[in-house]
Amino acid sequence: MKTKERILETALALFNSANTQAATTNHIASAMGISPGNLHYHYKNREEIIFALYEQMHQKLFPDASFIPQTLPALNEQHKQFALISWEYRFFYRELFFLLSRDANLKERFKTDNLAYKKRIEAMLFDFHSKGWMHLPLDNMILHLSDTILLFLQCWQPFLESMGEPMDAYAITGGIRRIEGSLRSFLTPEGLRILATLER
Amino acid sequence: MKTKERILETALALFNSANTQAATTNHIASAMGISPGNLHYHYKNREEIIFALYEQMHQKLFPDASFIPQTLPALNEQHKQFALISWEYRFFYRELFFLLSRDANLKERFKTDNLAYKKRIEAMLFDFHSKGWMHLPLDNMILHLSDTILLFLQCWQPFLESMGEPMDAYAITGGIRRIEGSLRSFLTPEGLRILATLER
Repeated sequence: MKTKERILETALALFNSANTQAATTNHIASAMGISPGNLHYHYKNREEIIFALYEQMHQKLFPDASFIPQTLPALNEQHKQFALISWEYRFFYRELFFLLSRDANLKERFKTDNLAYKKRIEAMLFDFHSKGWMHLPLDNMILHLSDTILLFLQCWQPFLESMGEPMDAYAITGGIRRIEGSLRSFLTPEGLRILATLER
Repeated sequence: MKTKERILETALALFNSANTQAATTNHIASAMGISPGNLHYHYKNREEIIFALYEQMHQKLFPDASFIPQTLPALNEQHKQFALISWEYRFFYRELFFLLSRDANLKERFKTDNLAYKKRIEAMLFDFHSKGWMHLPLDNMILHLSDTILLFLQCWQPFLESMGEPMDAYAITGGIRRIEGSLRSFLTPEGLRILATLER
């Protein structure tokens, strides 16, 4: 593995185990057994490392940036992947709003990515409504549901950690079950029937 | 106003406008025109100031720690107060999970307070179910709903800020409307009838 990749891997482990502010670039270099100068050759500062880790995570979360799930089980599968990957990069969502307040570049980039993702969620819900699977006659229903989905995806894990819950695989994906619950109350009888067939 | 109170007021303004890590105790003292020594006489470090601000906010959020709303409009009113007060102390929820990762005392105290609040929410939902206003026959429905309420109360405002939304009074209380929406899908016809009477 190249030094540049090892820096990200080491930083990720240190950020996850404590927080980004407790791990300076000197700590990261020292944990790798390289000189601070060698690290700074690859990344000017901690912000650059955090930005690179965000890009890496984003690439894993959305390998195809135009992908829109066509069915509820496909959506569920996408959310499960989201839960596992965001747990792998858990420092990011734990410190999300703090990190955005410190780095205008990251804030702008995150906002752009997130608004694009929200548009895809809304397009998907509109598609489910058009197919007769969900009943979302009012515009604000789609807006509310897309917010609920994003909020649970991004905040569920740190919220649960803050309640002192043990973070096992069941807990990590708990937000997905709550999203499913929110969607289910808008399913039509036809939607429920199709879902039962797809899940079999 | 006493120096001790002015320190909290100044720190709150600085924390809200940037973040806690950008405002050192020296910055706070300088903004007040007092010496760092005078500030340290009242608070040993920034963590003590953050803890004191948390206690102040908690006292405003829950003036009566045993209060449980008896009706849906009373619950709505409590949530509106929560939204306004958490906006007043917005640095806290913006940095919540980061702050907890830095201060074991605050983490323990927040967890204790939050679990107690969750118990009161669950007791309230059970009461609404017993009165025939809501239909929550499965234990996990009450658990899921209480999580949803807490998540929206604590994460809605920083989530919306991160999307670049202007934070006016409508946006600040937007989480409350989403909580209402979640609760409404569990209301019985009797609950809807009583609600219409109470809201008149």
